[in-house]
Amino acid sequence: MSIFDSALMFGDMAFEFTRTFGHKPFRLKEHLERLYASMKILRIDPGMTLEAMTTITHDVIERTAKGLDPNIDLQILHEVSRGILGPYKRAIDNERDANGPTVVIGAYPMDLHLAGFAPLYEEGLRAVIPPQRAIPAHLIDPKMKTRSRQHYQMANMQAAHVDPKAWAVLIDGDGFIAEGTGANVFVVVDGVLCTPERRNILRGVSRGVIFDLAARLGIDCLERNLEAYDIYNADEAFFTSTPFCIAGITHLDGLPIGSGTPGPIVKRLRDAWSELVGVDIAAQARWCANYVAAQG
Amino acid sequence: MSIFDSALMFGDMAFEFTRTFGHKPFRLKEHLERLYASMKILRIDPGMTLEAMTTITHDVIERTAKGLDPNIDLQILHEVSRGILGPYKRAIDNERDANGPTVVIGAYPMDLHLAGFAPLYEEGLRAVIPPQRAIPAHLIDPKMKTRSRQHYQMANMQAAHVDPKAWAVLIDGDGFIAEGTGANVFVVVDGVLCTPERRNILRGVSRGVIFDLAARLGIDCLERNLEAYDIYNADEAFFTSTPFCIAGITHLDGLPIGSGTPGPIVKRLRDAWSELVGVDIAAQARWCANYVAAQG
Amino acid sequence: MSIFDSALMFGDMAFEFTRTFGHKPFRLKEHLERLYASMKILRIDPGMTLEAMTTITHDVIERTAKGLDPNIDLQILHEVSRGILGPYKRAIDNERDANGPTVVIGAYPMDLHLAGFAPLYEEGLRAVIPPQRAIPAHLIDPKMKTRSRQHYQMANMQAAHVDPKAWAVLIDGDGFIAEGTGANVFVVVDGVLCTPERRNILRGVSRGVIFDLAARLGIDCLERNLEAYDIYNADEAFFTSTPFCIAGITHLDGLPIGSGTPGPIVKRLRDAWSELVGVDIAAQARWCANYVAAQG
Amino acid sequence: MSIFDSALMFGDMAFEFTRTFGHKPFRLKEHLERLYASMKILRIDPGMTLEAMTTITHDVIERTAKGLDPNIDLQILHEVSRGILGPYKRAIDNERDANGPTVVIGAYPMDLHLAGFAPLYEEGLRAVIPPQRAIPAHLIDPKMKTRSRQHYQMANMQAAHVDPKAWAVLIDGDGFIAEGTGANVFVVVDGVLCTPERRNILRGVSRGVIFDLAARLGIDCLERNLEAYDIYNADEAFFTSTPFCIAGITHLDGLPIGSGTPGPIVKRLRDAWSELVGVDIAAQARWCANYVAAQG
Amino acid sequence: MSIFDSALMFGDMAFEFTRTFGHKPFRLKEHLERLYASMKILRIDPGMTLEAMTTITHDVIERTAKGLDPNIDLQILHEVSRGILGPYKRAIDNERDANGPTVVIGAYPMDLHLAGFAPLYEEGLRAVIPPQRAIPAHLIDPKMKTRSRQHYQMANMQAAHVDPKAWAVLIDGDGFIAEGTGANVFVVVDGVLCTPERRNILRGVSRGVIFDLAARLGIDCLERNLEAYDIYNADEAFFTSTPFCIAGITHLDGLPIGSGTPGPIVKRLRDAWSELVGVDIAAQARWCANYVAAQG
Amino acid sequence: MSIFDSALMFGDMAFEFTRTFGHKPFRLKEHLERLYASMKILRIDPGMTLEAMTTITHDVIERTAKGLDPNIDLQILHEVSRGILGPYKRAIDNERDANGPTVVIGAYPMDLHLAGFAPLYEEGLRAVIPPQRAIPAHLIDPKMKTRSRQHYQMANMQAAHVDPKAWAVLIDGDGFIAEGTGANVFVVVDGVLCTPERRNILRGVSRGVIFDLAARLGIDCLERNLEAYDIYNADEAFFTSTPFCIAGITHLDGLPIGSGTPGPIVKRLRDAWSELVGVDIAAQARWCANYVAAQG
Repeated sequence: MSIFDSALMFGDMAFEFTRTFGHKPFRLKEHLERLYASMKILRIDPGMTLEAMTTITHDVIERTAKGLDPNIDLQILHEVSRGILGPYKRAIDNERDANGPTVVIGAYPMDLHLAGFAPLYEEGLRAVIPPQRAIPAHLIDPKMKTRSRQHYQMANMQAAHVDPKAWAVLIDGDGFIAEGTGANVFVVVDGVLCTPERRNILRGVSRGVIFDLAARLGIDCLERNLEAYDIYNADEAFFTSTPFCIAGITHLDGLPIGSGTPGPIVKRLRDAWSELVGVDIAAQARWCANYVAAQG
Repeated sequence: MSIFDSALMFGDMAFEFTRTFGHKPFRLKEHLERLYASMKILRIDPGMTLEAMTTITHDVIERTAKGLDPNIDLQILHEVSRGILGPYKRAIDNERDANGPTVVIGAYPMDLHLAGFAPLYEEGLRAVIPPQRAIPAHLIDPKMKTRSRQHYQMANMQAAHVDPKAWAVLIDGDGFIAEGTGANVFVVVDGVLCTPERRNILRGVSRGVIFDLAARLGIDCLERNLEAYDIYNADEAFFTSTPFCIAGITHLDGLPIGSGTPGPIVKRLRDAWSELVGVDIAAQARWCANYVAAQG
Repeated sequence: MSIFDSALMFGDMAFEFTRTFGHKPFRLKEHLERLYASMKILRIDPGMTLEAMTTITHDVIERTAKGLDPNIDLQILHEVSRGILGPYKRAIDNERDANGPTVVIGAYPMDLHLAGFAPLYEEGLRAVIPPQRAIPAHLIDPKMKTRSRQHYQMANMQAAHVDPKAWAVLIDGDGFIAEGTGANVFVVVDGVLCTPERRNILRGVSRGVIFDLAARLGIDCLERNLEAYDIYNADEAFFTSTPFCIAGITHLDGLPIGSGTPGPIVKRLRDAWSELVGVDIAAQARWCANYVAAQG
Repeated sequence: MSIFDSALMFGDMAFEFTRTFGHKPFRLKEHLERLYASMKILRIDPGMTLEAMTTITHDVIERTAKGLDPNIDLQILHEVSRGILGPYKRAIDNERDANGPTVVIGAYPMDLHLAGFAPLYEEGLRAVIPPQRAIPAHLIDPKMKTRSRQHYQMANMQAAHVDPKAWAVLIDGDGFIAEGTGANVFVVVDGVLCTPERRNILRGVSRGVIFDLAARLGIDCLERNLEAYDIYNADEAFFTSTPFCIAGITHLDGLPIGSGTPGPIVKRLRDAWSELVGVDIAAQARWCANYVAAQG
Repeated sequence: MSIFDSALMFGDMAFEFTRTFGHKPFRLKEHLERLYASMKILRIDPGMTLEAMTTITHDVIERTAKGLDPNIDLQILHEVSRGILGPYKRAIDNERDANGPTVVIGAYPMDLHLAGFAPLYEEGLRAVIPPQRAIPAHLIDPKMKTRSRQHYQMANMQAAHVDPKAWAVLIDGDGFIAEGTGANVFVVVDGVLCTPERRNILRGVSRGVIFDLAARLGIDCLERNLEAYDIYNADEAFFTSTPFCIAGITHLDGLPIGSGTPGPIVKRLRDAWSELVGVDIAAQARWCANYVAAQG
Repeated sequence: MSIFDSALMFGDMAFEFTRTFGHKPFRLKEHLERLYASMKILRIDPGMTLEAMTTITHDVIERTAKGLDPNIDLQILHEVSRGILGPYKRAIDNERDANGPTVVIGAYPMDLHLAGFAPLYEEGLRAVIPPQRAIPAHLIDPKMKTRSRQHYQMANMQAAHVDPKAWAVLIDGDGFIAEGTGANVFVVVDGVLCTPERRNILRGVSRGVIFDLAARLGIDCLERNLEAYDIYNADEAFFTSTPFCIAGITHLDGLPIGSGTPGPIVKRLRDAWSELVGVDIAAQARWCANYVAAQG
């Protein structure tokens, strides 16, 4: 990508990560609708309809999946920026004629990713609240998935200072739990699921899946303001995210949540998710871990 | 640049724009010191000392300037990201072996830019306070020049809705003037220069030049909290920025500042700047405007 | 009104606008209860009971409506200030003996207003989020309807700079949608009505009507925090207000909401409202537009 | 004034109070410049130049002062609103032809006011910090003197609940001292004058007089953030305001400031002020108190 | 307690007050669970399990209650600090060997307290919103019951300045009702109970009792943001707290709430509470008042 | 101290730590003036004048210092609370007659403390910005030195999670550096000393010493808003505090400040301080370290 692209000059690029299960895209429609919502507000015209982008995406998946082991699913990447910024066009001769938006539709095998997720399902993960605060949505809106995310990187580094394996959980300026740096947070209290209100967070597609699965399982699922206190004293807590779906948080700031191991409701939700997509999520990760190890 | 580079994934890249006057870099040391300060906090190791980067920069300038009309100065670009992010390395075969930071040191003729500045010096520019607020430095620090700047782009678009030629002036959450989207703001009141305190702004190298020139001209120059009210009722106001140096703001939100034309102190400062660098700034812009027009 | 009245000195006056349908006051009780709630907190004693004020109001309506075409409804104005401020009483001789509160109970034909609403029902209106923010209720409480509303006027002017016909929608310091400058905001998402929580807004009587009509029509209606993002991506959006009842918002900040025209649920609600009050709201506005045009 | 005037509908009216000393207006130029600054931002065109308004003002003073005892000075009132609001013009027949701004230039004897100030000079006054907070200038700017001041009235009432004779001192949301409800605050610490920074306050003309008098007396005078703590522990504190010039604050929240009586620097400043204007400020107040008592 | 104990050095001590009804502890489990939740976050290890502490508590109650009139219930105090701070241990010779946490488990007759509550049940109490604001939970979390509560004491004193018998009701920085200084707040509006959301408050055990009693009585009970406006205009309002259970608030800031006397729902709730615990709460208070009077 | 003392119930106790040099109290007057300022606002009457407390303090010092090696200086502790809270007095029989404030005036040898400071002078210390934010002064005022300091303890623990030897540096909600948890912060930039403005901090007596020493040494010393960025990029940074006087900060958040070792200006200031008090501060600490080691 050109260094004069608005994506690089301003972190000004809408994007989406989608994944497949069994080489079929999961909730592609939701992802692309969110992409088009982001572009609408960014006033970026991708030059194609959502339907056209869907068709191309299926084509890209098909070509990338060809010959791939069914255990190795794909990550799909959509990126659209407003393109090379006006005043810089001439400066770079080979791009003098560049016009309009930059559109990237890609896919690649996620065996390495999946391999890395295997321990998340078994052991869960430890989280830390770093000094970095979430950015209020009226300043940079996390609901618009763009590349201006330096603060996520800062939070990741700060979490690593406390514990090299810890994941960051951002709180906002009022002390409310916002989100991970690429994941949504849920807690389980007395059998009820709670997740932060929808303001200072990415309204994750996987977050929506949890609402659906909870309804299916007869578990109440509420949006409400949560604080560190609520996680410390929850029965269970977990992250959701497109690549790994759901993973238990066992500790926050070094304090055990519930038993300090992934809890039963996390497991029920992951099983229900596996059933929904026809792929045993944890088994696939183990397969990939073995596969990657065998590949050297 | 790879789409898996941290620069693109997180807008996580330190950068600097420097310019030349008469093909000599202006305040390169200040720019590189700021770049290294940004990298320190971002914990990006560029793999070379500031001195080594200076040497390379001079070399790049020399090669780019060769044969160029002395009226056409260069813009120099330094960009350093922490490189391609771990989990994605394998995904893209040709980058499998990529390691370490991404470092860009470039230069290109700025005739087009300079041509665009000609009317700024003669007519000044109109500014608008958009709804977008400046981001508090503890959330994303503008003093670290990175690419997470979606909010600047939003502010630019909002300003354009009011007046297609207007430039944005950001206020912070307390209503204090912060900065333009790539420029610092000054006002002149009763012969004294005032500019916002150094917190929610890029501490611009050009801003520092104004302090130096003011001292030379015997004009007091203060850092203090400024509000829209102070600009509306100032005698003069202006932007400073590396590419165009200094340009008068004639209107804010449609209200004339002082006489509604670039004022005498702006002119004195621009003349002093021209003298400092040995280039008549306004004349060079006019020359470039003619040159570009002639090129078609 | 005396220029030394507290209403003018401090914008310190409780007021209400009520309207008639078919020359009968609509929800007069709710309006007067809100007026008395405002006066309670402002510690203004109007010198008469709510019942007495109701009686006088009916009398004023009867006298004003006498001989008026039934299509021309009335706007009723209640205003109560604490009266002329102590230290100024003597200054103005003819008011030397003024004592106690200033109470205004008035009514006037709203043919001109109604005529102006005709296009709102057919074409809807365009809205803009201006830089002016809503004032937190603990500073000046919009739930108490007083005359300290300079910020509404600023917001109106700022909206007009972007688009001379645009209406302002205020967001608060957290970026949540508050209200218009004299109207409440609703969005329709997946068939559900949502409107901002009840803190930084006037708790409009018309807003309450929508809750009633929605219940009658079997449409869910929720109070929740809304952001610009939610309006940009809503299926429909609308304002409610005593004079015009309900009007579709077709664009926000230049972006179309849903189809970019008044939507079906807005129409259903207006029809239900017309039925409730026995006046075809849109038809009445068209009648008034013709009437005013005929009057020249 | 019409109840449909924007002054009443929105508290949307710029105004100034000026006073005379010896029947000569004091700092009229500063007051009118501030009035025109307010109108500029409110986008109200008064239909006359500052010079024309000055001439009229002198004329009004002359006519009002005719035959008045020289001890009875005048308060001059300037008020300009944008006039009767469009949609309401027709509604009130006798104002059908009203056009343009509403301009009030008035003057009246301030014997009653002055009489009331007599004890302020001798005993000083007690102040209280009420729950009501100052409004941030970016919401409603106190530097623009308008009539949207409900919060001042609320603060006055809250102060009276604590102590019927107490005056309110507003703090802002950060806990910094802002201003009285119509007066600026100063403290004296170790012989140095300090007053709040110029953001959330009216930049009082009398405040400016103190800077001038302090310079004349060789007393340092600083603008800085002040907190309740600083007043509680100051050597002296005082209010300044156009009508009463300067008055010592002896207590804050029931705690004595310094000796709990008006201090020596307040007295020095009042004497210097008296000398500046050729009127013994305290003596004039006592004369008026006697005069008013004699009038019954 | 040693003056070098962390409890005194930093107000760093978790504590709970529990009370008995008929000499049986009421909701001891909830109190101790909250105590252990506080200690978890404070990282204080009390050196005993919750079960062990329960056993000791019962023992303490039994010993204290022995011979006590059944009308005189007990207040039970649990306090745990991290003990004497390291650097100070040697300084005080007799504590040189002190190690580990300081644990206090105590009980004492509350006849004096109960006697003082008698008028609360009959006349209710008056409340005032003081200038002191509630502290956001992310700064000092009221959900962790510790001794860092200077702000409660400040609020109490400020309330007493307005009215010596008034109780303080804290609002937070957004103007939302938080809590009393040791009590939770409820309002009754149209037969529905509302109480502030669970963020900036102690999540009182008595507050939980009200939820239970309301469910039993078929009264809806909601958590929602409340403002002063909502209390001023409520039908009833009340405090809950462990020692006095429930007491009606009859006035806020001098304004009557509802009828200005304790309302019918407060009475129904107190009766239901009495039934739940087998003690007539109001009668017991009257008994104690007589008893204390008789004791002199 | 009684567990029913207000000091323990509310963290409601004013206190001061003073130290001696050569068994003479250092700046005792400043410490006691601050203590009396705290008590004034807390409305605690200690029952004795500042002069009486000074006399007693000298007496306590004399008695404690008797026979002590001159190298072992004393820490002096003043603590005043409003005493045992009313409703609890009777509960504890042996304190039934307790009345009035609790006053503690104590002194103890600080050999252990001083021994612990030895490495601070040689190696400096590492600091960390924890997630815990400073509390705004209008909520709990750090200028009043009281015991409600749970947040300091939380910050200390959070810092220790990152680095067991790290000290906490608190930033406030705006991201400005406030203070350490018991120490003030300074930076050195281009030979100038800067320290945070005086709002959200204890206005340390040692901080005042630095202003005096800087004046003596001809070094400029400014109060200004500082951010993490300013410390990361400073030439030197240091803490000041009554017990250890001055200690260099070598790292913040793992990043080296300047050379990453205590700098030359820190050393000059410590030497000047040693000269001022007639005690070689670093040598004394080494002596105490040896002494304590010898004691076992």
